[in-house]
Amino acid sequence: MEDALALSDAVRGTTSPNPPVGAVILDAHGHRVGAGATQPPPGPHAEVVALREAGRRARGGTAVVTLEPCAHHGRTPPCTRALLDAGVAAVRFAVPDPHPAASGGGEVLRAAGMDVEAGSLADEVAAGPLRAWLHRERTGRPHVTWKYAATLDGRVAAADGTSRWISGPVSRAEVHAIRAAADAVVVGTGTVLADDPWLTVRGDDGALAARQPLRVVVGTRGIPGGARVLDSAAETIVLDSHDPDEVLAVLGDRGVVDVLLEGGPTLAGAFVAGRRVDRLLAYVAPALLGAGAVALGPAGVSTVTEAHRWRVETATMSGEDVRISAVPVTGEGGD
Amino acid sequence: MEDALALSDAVRGTTSPNPPVGAVILDAHGHRVGAGATQPPPGPHAEVVALREAGRRARGGTAVVTLEPCAHHGRTPPCTRALLDAGVAAVRFAVPDPHPAASGGGEVLRAAGMDVEAGSLADEVAAGPLRAWLHRERTGRPHVTWKYAATLDGRVAAADGTSRWISGPVSRAEVHAIRAAADAVVVGTGTVLADDPWLTVRGDDGALAARQPLRVVVGTRGIPGGARVLDSAAETIVLDSHDPDEVLAVLGDRGVVDVLLEGGPTLAGAFVAGRRVDRLLAYVAPALLGAGAVALGPAGVSTVTEAHRWRVETATMSGEDVRISAVPVTGEGGD
Repeated sequence: MEDALALSDAVRGTTSPNPPVGAVILDAHGHRVGAGATQPPPGPHAEVVALREAGRRARGGTAVVTLEPCAHHGRTPPCTRALLDAGVAAVRFAVPDPHPAASGGGEVLRAAGMDVEAGSLADEVAAGPLRAWLHRERTGRPHVTWKYAATLDGRVAAADGTSRWISGPVSRAEVHAIRAAADAVVVGTGTVLADDPWLTVRGDDGALAARQPLRVVVGTRGIPGGARVLDSAAETIVLDSHDPDEVLAVLGDRGVVDVLLEGGPTLAGAFVAGRRVDRLLAYVAPALLGAGAVALGPAGVSTVTEAHRWRVETATMSGEDVRISAVPVTGEGGD
Repeated sequence: MEDALALSDAVRGTTSPNPPVGAVILDAHGHRVGAGATQPPPGPHAEVVALREAGRRARGGTAVVTLEPCAHHGRTPPCTRALLDAGVAAVRFAVPDPHPAASGGGEVLRAAGMDVEAGSLADEVAAGPLRAWLHRERTGRPHVTWKYAATLDGRVAAADGTSRWISGPVSRAEVHAIRAAADAVVVGTGTVLADDPWLTVRGDDGALAARQPLRVVVGTRGIPGGARVLDSAAETIVLDSHDPDEVLAVLGDRGVVDVLLEGGPTLAGAFVAGRRVDRLLAYVAPALLGAGAVALGPAGVSTVTEAHRWRVETATMSGEDVRISAVPVTGEGGD
């Protein structure tokens, strides 16, 4: 399952609206004979890719999959059918499929005499590659990760507005990897006016990555026609609203599942106040500024007992910075 | 040495201006026959306390001490003399004594035929119980730890000024333990006017601890005669300045070695700008406020390249909060 999880992780950002699933096929002797991951739509699901590689060696073997195989006809035939046709004897999956039409794959296979077990690495898969997709299945909304880099005293820029660089090179490279795995990157018009960012994904060599997330600029202020975010490196949409639900509805309609919110304070405040941040990812740099903009603007809180409360998932070093990942204690998106 | 380190830790805050040292005596067979720690002045040093417990069983044994035994006559006779008189055969110490008059204890003992080794757990002792004292020996100034509790978005209070509670119960109990180990707790007049804190050390049951650190209120604004910090629970001094060097000079003259700076933003800004914070201890609570006071006020930085840069020593959980300990990258206090 570790291998399937890694395969799943590797295709994040390329499969939406389908989930990024990984699958490994073992032959009857337990040797790995096939591996695959969900292909970009309308391509095949992970199981089918892995079964194709395994060919006849799958017969009597085991399929290890991060998500319960689907039992329904969508853009592709059901994976349960492919597994049965290949003569696989056993299936291990991490996370049950919550989708009303797709779930029951495990039951279908069991009824056909297959040895089916669920739950291996379920937490890791659910909090990892399938997190955004599972959230979308449960809530109908894209999953929003709010990412920011601040100093120990909470500043995202110095008094003169400069912010390059607050976080260190390890964190900045990590942010590019996180962008690469997102379906869309959202900023406010204020950020475009202040920083004129490209919002593209670049490799260590500075070259543009082949796949770019959708760039989304939201807010009611106009942005100049020459803004970098409007260049031809990736698709960009500009929305004349920063109401989180309006923004997420537009993105959801476009098949976006995994959203990376990159600030600034006004937009982040609107999303936090609307309980539409599902995960917070803070890079806290060991620096002090004593003045300058802070990460979060007004978020509907006037006294400390009304504070938005979160739960820290992990607090780890990212180069010289501290990376804190947290989720709302009231459930995702305040549901 | 782990035992000696623990003994050392346990007397922090009670020994200044002497260092909080721990000592363990092993007999000739390696059995522990004595243990002790520095007593409040003018009491005996750790070695003497431990040797008294060991009595004649120390003969041919080993003394394990967190600091190199002193070789000079101060308020007490030299510890090297006590070790030689007791017939100890070997001495192990963690940290060499940097004090000009006291150092050379290891050499004195070696010259007298004793088996002497240094360096065991030296880093742990130097960063732990002896940190403040070693700093004072090196710089002539008390060691300053700036402690604050802030939300993920850097706020130390909500828009209406409320701040109880930002951090969780585990962190708050820990702060009481840290206060108990400090010689002095320093706040600004602004904090007294806003929060009217007691600044006392209380146990889990709410009862006042037997020993209380000196309470120090600094700044140019007056404070009301009825302020809690002026009650009889502990000694308090009020200084009509928040210049860090003036404040530290007054405290140093009073024998204060270990200072806990508890804010607020103006005072912290003055200490950070003056490079007089030697360690930063941030309790980052998983909460968002979006408005309200931030931890650090103006600290002499106008653009990001001038940021005060720190190095994270540890980032660990403290209950539900993240505790970050950091030191200046330019050396302690900017030396």
